[in-house]
Amino acid sequence: MKLNFKHSNKLRVRYSETDQMGYCYYGNYAQYFEVGRVETLRKIGISYKQLEERGIMLPVIDFHVKYEKPAKYDDNLTIQTKIIEIKGAKIIFEYTIINESNETIAISSTTLAFISKKTMRPITPPKDFIELLSQYIVN
Amino acid sequence: MKLNFKHSNKLRVRYSETDQMGYCYYGNYAQYFEVGRVETLRKIGISYKQLEERGIMLPVIDFHVKYEKPAKYDDNLTIQTKIIEIKGAKIIFEYTIINESNETIAISSTTLAFISKKTMRPITPPKDFIELLSQYIVN
Amino acid sequence: MKLNFKHSNKLRVRYSETDQMGYCYYGNYAQYFEVGRVETLRKIGISYKQLEERGIMLPVIDFHVKYEKPAKYDDNLTIQTKIIEIKGAKIIFEYTIINESNETIAISSTTLAFISKKTMRPITPPKDFIELLSQYIVN
Amino acid sequence: MKLNFKHSNKLRVRYSETDQMGYCYYGNYAQYFEVGRVETLRKIGISYKQLEERGIMLPVIDFHVKYEKPAKYDDNLTIQTKIIEIKGAKIIFEYTIINESNETIAISSTTLAFISKKTMRPITPPKDFIELLSQYIVN
Repeated sequence: MKLNFKHSNKLRVRYSETDQMGYCYYGNYAQYFEVGRVETLRKIGISYKQLEERGIMLPVIDFHVKYEKPAKYDDNLTIQTKIIEIKGAKIIFEYTIINESNETIAISSTTLAFISKKTMRPITPPKDFIELLSQYIVN
Repeated sequence: MKLNFKHSNKLRVRYSETDQMGYCYYGNYAQYFEVGRVETLRKIGISYKQLEERGIMLPVIDFHVKYEKPAKYDDNLTIQTKIIEIKGAKIIFEYTIINESNETIAISSTTLAFISKKTMRPITPPKDFIELLSQYIVN
Repeated sequence: MKLNFKHSNKLRVRYSETDQMGYCYYGNYAQYFEVGRVETLRKIGISYKQLEERGIMLPVIDFHVKYEKPAKYDDNLTIQTKIIEIKGAKIIFEYTIINESNETIAISSTTLAFISKKTMRPITPPKDFIELLSQYIVN
Repeated sequence: MKLNFKHSNKLRVRYSETDQMGYCYYGNYAQYFEVGRVETLRKIGISYKQLEERGIMLPVIDFHVKYEKPAKYDDNLTIQTKIIEIKGAKIIFEYTIINESNETIAISSTTLAFISKKTMRPITPPKDFIELLSQYIVN
């Protein structure tokens, strides 16, 4: 099902996340998108932590980033996250990172798979998860 | 120009790189590909460190990963890196990560841009860089 | 001079920061203390970013942590930071991390040195820095 | 029991591990010491991975670092690790990091606790672990 749920959160670039170019290291964006994902699910009423406690893991299986402009130390970034689709055992998120000058820093998408901890096989998302998301279905 | 230079290096998954799923965190692969890149350039005779000292930066502008199987703690991974193209100010690398059981863990590609530290604008790669690579041109 | 300035900030444990024990990796606390330091200085009116732009670096030269209880994924931690002393070119911070159940997670202290970027030698802290802090002197 | 087992391993500073000061970020040394620990145990015949599989965790409970000189990008560091004591459920490691110019970069010590995964309580180290170490007892 195609979805359209959007959520934004703020996040400041840590010193540890810079590299000697003076930029936020390209690999650290993965953490920012993870925070975006988790806060977006929390907003809908889904705790990723509880999902894991119920035996469901959500590993990332595909990750793409386009870096438009460098993020720098102490930048107060806005992570815009969008849930755009659930297809079988997969869920797709899209992200845009914006800085304080309203410049686009990065555009990204991730595909995650619902995996049962017990069987280690893909599974359909839990019913309550689908129900919470179904109010954001688009055609 | 299309290129075909391959190099492999080994790398062990650190405890710090695992997450509570017991997998190597998806964002940490960026570091593995960076190590692959740097060692591949060193093999050809190019020191990334010296490149920066000469005023040239190589930020990643596009990054894609397909995660096939989880890498786990203490896995002794093989990072296979391939330089496949230089096009204007851009250089494209492709990577495959293999574990000790010869399973493919991840497939990736990154595009990097040659940027002048002084002007902060894209520049063509230095002559000696091109010369060292030109022996690996493919048609 | 002995000081007593305290500030608290909140910070949520990221998935990337856990390890396969299910705990926040012991090395990641360094980032939390850094965030505590930076926010504490900001509270007083000092931007660490601007300090660097004025040619002053503040590398950590001594770091001690006592881990009391594990921090876990999604824990909403409170970082309590205290500036306790400036002595020559050195500044000492102390930290306590508390979780939502009011348990002490970790106790730490760091010593940082004011270093001139130009000479790479220790220097006394800038006057305005000292002035802003001098209102928190204790005997 | 007081011990004296020493082991050295090499490790290159990754770009991801630098910060905008151009130094290896102070928090990343924790990973280097972890690698030192794991390789030192492997040398004696102990796999940390297998220890965990047998239900024993070894979280760090105390960590101290003295930073003498900055480590820089691409530095090929030597991590010298020493197991100096086992006392009840605790094991103490000491470390020295040396760069290629034979300069001391950092000196550190960590105390770890043997914890049972089942009971989450401290336990004495397994017999075979003690046996392997007992040949390095000093008075």
